[in-house]
Parts: sequence; C-alpha cells; structure tokens
Amino acid sequence: MARFTIIGTGNMGGAIGSVLTDGGSTVTHIGHGQTGTIDGDVVILAVPYHAVSDIIATYGDQLRGKVVVDISNPVNFETFDSLAVPVGSSAAAELAAKLPNSTVLKAFNTNFAATLASKKIGAQQTTVLIAGNDDAGKKVLATALEAGGVSAIDAGSLGRAHELEALGFLQLTLAIGGTLPWTGGFAVVR
Amino acid sequence: MARFTIIGTGNMGGAIGSVLTDGGSTVTHIGHGQTGTIDGDVVILAVPYHAVSDIIATYGDQLRGKVVVDISNPVNFETFDSLAVPVGSSAAAELAAKLPNSTVLKAFNTNFAATLASKKIGAQQTTVLIAGNDDAGKKVLATALEAGGVSAIDAGSLGRAHELEALGFLQLTLAIGGTLPWTGGFAVVR
Repeated sequence: MARFTIIGTGNMGGAIGSVLTDGGSTVTHIGHGQTGTIDGDVVILAVPYHAVSDIIATYGDQLRGKVVVDISNPVNFETFDSLAVPVGSSAAAELAAKLPNSTVLKAFNTNFAATLASKKIGAQQTTVLIAGNDDAGKKVLATALEAGGVSAIDAGSLGRAHELEALGFLQLTLAIGGTLPWTGGFAVVR
Repeated sequence: MARFTIIGTGNMGGAIGSVLTDGGSTVTHIGHGQTGTIDGDVVILAVPYHAVSDIIATYGDQLRGKVVVDISNPVNFETFDSLAVPVGSSAAAELAAKLPNSTVLKAFNTNFAATLASKKIGAQQTTVLIAGNDDAGKKVLATALEAGGVSAIDAGSLGRAHELEALGFLQLTLAIGGTLPWTGGFAVVR
C-alpha cells in the first residue's frame, strides 16, 4: 500500500491517519511546528489555511515531486461571510501556484473529522471528494481511502476546488450556526 | 396554507408542485411561454437560467411585492467548467438586482427532481436548502415544504446563493459524468 505523511496532528490529521492505516497504508505524522522528515509520495497538509504558508517555508524543498493534499477551508474569520481567497479562486489553486514542482489535490475539506473517524454520516458511508489535475495522484489517494473503509469520488479538475471550498464553507456556517451537527453535514448518495 | 405560483412545467416544476400540494398548499402552474395570472405571495421560477429574463419581461409587474424563488443552476454549457454568472456572484443575486420590488430566495437548485418527487435521497429525507435575506419568506416556504414531507433548512443570507450554486454545479458535473445517479447527490444529515 501507499506511504503518506500527514502534517498536523489535530482532529483532522488524526482521523485521516486512522482511515489510511486501517487500509494498510503507512502513515508518518509530523506535528505542525515540529520539524520532521517527509516519507512517501503523498503529503497531506492537515493544518488550518493560515498555517499553510509556514509549511511551505519549512518543507518546500521536501515537497518537490510529491502529491500534496490541501484540506483547508479558507474562511474569512473576520466576516464569516466569505472566503479569504480571491473570488473564483481557491486555497488549493493558490497552493498549486506556490508549489510548481508538486502536484496539488484538494480533498477532505467537505468532511467533518467525526465523520472520517466513524466512517459514517447518518446511514451513509462517508465519502471523500477529491479534486485535482493528476489522475494518478487522485487514484492513489482514493484507493488508499477505500481500503480504509470510506468512499472516495473523483470530483474533477483542480478548478473544482472552488466548488469544494464553497461546499465546505456552507457546511461550516451551518454547523457553527447550530443547523447541522458536527457529526453530520453533506453526505453523498450514489 | 400558503398559495404558490410555479412558472415552468418541467420535471422540477412538477416535483416542487407535488410536494407543496401534498402539504396542503394551493399551487397555480403556468407553463413557461404561456401567459397566466400569478396567484399567491410566492412565485417559484422553475425554468432554466437562460429563460429567467423572459419571465421578468413577461411577469415583471406581477412580481412586485412577491417572494420570488430562483431554482436555477447557471451553468456555462459551452465550457461546462464554470458558471455563466460573474465570479463571486450568483443567478439569485442577479435576479434580485433586476427585481428590486420583489424578495428573491434561492432554493431547490441543489435538489434533483427525482429526490423531490420521492422525498428521499438514499435513506435520508430530502432537504431543500433556502437562502435569502427575507426571514419571513424563507419561513413560509420552509413551512409549506415540511408540511409536504421534505425537510427544509435556512442556509443563510442571499449571499449564500453563491455557495448553493457552486454545490448545484458540482452535483451536476458529477451526475452528467456518471459519478452520481440522478436519484442521488448530496444529502443533508442532521
């Protein structure tokens, strides 16, 4: 199975790591702020949006040639009425521009940590939506996730990260407002 | 119960009308292209995005003082890679600008017709997401829908129509690509 490094040891990093190890993948965890050595071909940045530039500064060289997965929801926390990225763009597109020698994927930003940990959302299996321009990278991630007991869908090109971030933002506003529980949200029905 | 007029007699207009009449509301159906008299306080434009300007030309005066519900997904059908509205905006915001004497809501664009007709999406009750700046209008629509056997959620201000249209677009791309069935899509788990 594949080898992954997850940077960030919060709820999301932990839940994603559990799914991957349940599926037989090897996962190296590095705390954000720690200095570690990246292992494997896929690096998951399980850190808040504002921490991503730190990660690039620290690990930029080690990210060359890697598949880098952005999970962030770049919410403008001052207004909580928009995203902190230029309209029409996405955090993932920004990251791809800063890492021209890496392959950037968007994934996990539409999943609350609890639904990754339980692998269920209501009666449905949890589904991870993956966007990116690298079909091979998407396939590696999807295969590892499905081996770990969640569903994975190719959501299209990296351009679709804009829609995934819109979905993540909408879901966050509904959860913070109390309309949705942190164990629920948007499920994919196939 | 409330009185509605639905303009547009396609799959969506029919499915929405069935839910509302099941809930005891009175529904007047007018075919797009027909000339009819609008009844009630809420008018649902169950027509494609490109037909909305026709409706405004025909019914503009009759829409004064009404709650007008935009259900469209303004997909750019040339590229199928973006929406046909300015980045950051929405079809609903455009409609609101054209109808300053009406109250515009966004709803139903994240629901496929089959999931409104069956009132189910997988094991979940179908949920209609409603965005708009008029709490009273959202409440009238939500109450009528819930009486008809589907769930309804206040998704926030009309600004959230941008996110609802992003979600609708993403769902359409996945259904057209065969990843999702037209009986499925995004369900809301509470």
